[in-house]
Parts: sequence; C-alpha cells; structure tokens
Amino acid sequence: MLQSSLHCKVPNGAIDITCLLIFLNASTDAPHFLMEFIQGSPTSIVVLLDLLPRKDLALHPEYIERYYENTQVDKQREKVEELPQARPYRSRSLFLRSTVSLTAILMSIDCGQGGEGTLEEIVRGQLATAARALLQIWLDSCADHTSEMEEGERENMIKRDQIVRSKSIEVDLTSNLPRMFGPDVADRVIAEIQKAFGVQ
Amino acid sequence: MLQSSLHCKVPNGAIDITCLLIFLNASTDAPHFLMEFIQGSPTSIVVLLDLLPRKDLALHPEYIERYYENTQVDKQREKVEELPQARPYRSRSLFLRSTVSLTAILMSIDCGQGGEGTLEEIVRGQLATAARALLQIWLDSCADHTSEMEEGERENMIKRDQIVRSKSIEVDLTSNLPRMFGPDVADRVIAEIQKAFGVQ
Repeated sequence: MLQSSLHCKVPNGAIDITCLLIFLNASTDAPHFLMEFIQGSPTSIVVLLDLLPRKDLALHPEYIERYYENTQVDKQREKVEELPQARPYRSRSLFLRSTVSLTAILMSIDCGQGGEGTLEEIVRGQLATAARALLQIWLDSCADHTSEMEEGERENMIKRDQIVRSKSIEVDLTSNLPRMFGPDVADRVIAEIQKAFGVQ
Repeated sequence: MLQSSLHCKVPNGAIDITCLLIFLNASTDAPHFLMEFIQGSPTSIVVLLDLLPRKDLALHPEYIERYYENTQVDKQREKVEELPQARPYRSRSLFLRSTVSLTAILMSIDCGQGGEGTLEEIVRGQLATAARALLQIWLDSCADHTSEMEEGERENMIKRDQIVRSKSIEVDLTSNLPRMFGPDVADRVIAEIQKAFGVQ
C-alpha cells in the first residue's frame, strides 16, 4: 500500500497531490486499487479513481464481467461525469492511459472563479461518495480473494504488474517530481517508492 | 475488409450506419483500421475512428510508442474533441470499450435543433479531415508491413484477434441487428460477416 501526500508551492499558489495505491500480490488476479486527487488551485481538482486491471481485457471478457460488470462499478463513473463542472481528464502519457480500466473515473473538475465553496461541496459530496463506493466494491470483490490460474498465466500477470509499476514511475514520477521538488528530494522519494514496488 | 452501410427506418426518421473495417493478417502485429459513422438524426452523429490494437498495450510500451506515439495519431483526436458540439461517446458494452486504443476518436456530435447545416459542415470539414488523416497514418505505418514475432507471441495475437472479432459480433450485431431488421435479415447478415471474419 502506498499512501502519499505531496505539497508543492508554485508561483501562483500550491499543488497538492494525494494518492492511495493498494497493490495485490500474485495469489489473485483481482484489480489493484487507485485513488488520486490532484488539486492545482482552490477551485479545481483532477480525480483518478480506478480498479486497475491486471490482465489484457480484450483477451479476457470473463475478467471484465467478473470485476467490472457484475460489480456495477461503471455507475460511479456515470454519476461523477454528470456533474456540469466535470470534463474527461486524459493523461498526456499514452502509456498511463493504457494502464487504467474501461470504467476508470478520470475527471478534471473546474468550478471557475469564486467556485471554492462549490468545489468543497463536490469533494465532500459526489467525490467522497464515489471514492467510498469504489473502495467498498474493491474490498468486497477484490481484496482477500485468491484466484486459480495456470502457471503461465500467473507469470504473465507478474510480468505485466512489473512493467506497469516500473514504467509508471518512469513516466509519472521521474518526469514530474524533479521539476516540483528539485533532483535531490525527488531522487530519494523515487528510490523509496521503487523499493516498495520491488522494481529497482 | 468489411464495408457496410445499414439504413433502418425508425418511428421518427431513420438510422444510418456506415462502417469500414480493415483487418490485417498474422504476418504483422500492426493495428487494424476502424471507421464507423452512426447517424441517428439529421443533426447528430456518432463517430468511431481508431487503429485497433492487437496487443495488450500495458504489457507492450514499445507497441504504443511505435504505432500511437510516433505516428502522432492522438492529435487527430484532440482536434475533433475541440469541437464545441462534441461529447465523448462510450459504448454501453464494457467489452467493446476494451477493444479500442487509447487514442480512439469516440465522439458523439450533436448540433441541436436546426443544426443540419452545421453538422453537414462538420462532417465535410473536421470529420472528413480526421478520417483521411487516420487512414493515411494507417497506410503509411501499418498496412504492408511485416513484424518479426516469437511463435508464442503470434499465437497469442491470433487468439486475441479471434476473441475480439467473435465477441464484437456477439455484443454489437447479435444484440442490435434483429431489433433493427428482424431476425431473418439479421441472421443472414451476421452469418455472412462471421464467415468473412472466420469466426463461425
């Protein structure tokens, strides 16, 4: 489990990034849990909420059915998307886009000038509800389960997990942290995360 | 290559679906080509334009780089998305969502009451430009190439192609065509497509 809070002063304010990542081990093929909030101003926020898939979804329709259809996880995305302040968020990294599921909540919420109170309401209302619902689905359907798999399948999943972790650090952290906190702090933080992820 | 034009009368008008699908064989791992326009009214249209991936993208960052980053295909998506009339389109089928790439143009364009002329302009303008650009990228970077692959990799890709085709027919055609054209016509059309796709 990786829980991180980054606070970075910028010329016109501050950026706050709060992240909770829960990775499962190879005794199960159930999705990992991702929750991330990136607040770049008092009136806007980017939300990433997902059950991160561990298999090639197009090759495994039964995996989609089990973890994404039966859990009705897409309803949470629909509710957040209904907010008039919400716009789809797309990572500039095509790789990061490929790591999320087809029901991922990836939204940028902008309440405009003077919208501090509205944003606060949305965070405590719809976003908190969606995050809680997703975590509950993950706890009920993903955590604490074991999956029967052929050995080759399990090896493939482990390889996939490794690539996703190491490449995500490279694309996300290595390219952004030094810019935010300078090379020394960034290097130390990244080294710790790589250690925790087992991808040094 | 599958080229189809469906015209279906409905109580308040007609639905026109035009589709061009170009599948490559197993001598290459390059993406297939998809272009589909679904016009449900004189003022609105759904556009699907994509280079359909044939590998698990998260497991193959080099595939993303080769076919989606180096070709700058995402710029076409950005241009269509800039249209004020465009909204993201999401298939209700989670499986179909899993078959497209991370740069797919999946948009619903609604020009509102009296917007027939505007839609016509958008179709002849931005949509035609995007479709031509995407086809050109596909012709330059995907068609007529062969890829070196290990035998296991190639087998996996063939299996993936088969699942995507048969499941797409099941989810998309088998559930929609009978409703539009009655069971007899639908059965005949689906049987022909299955034959062409080699997934009977």
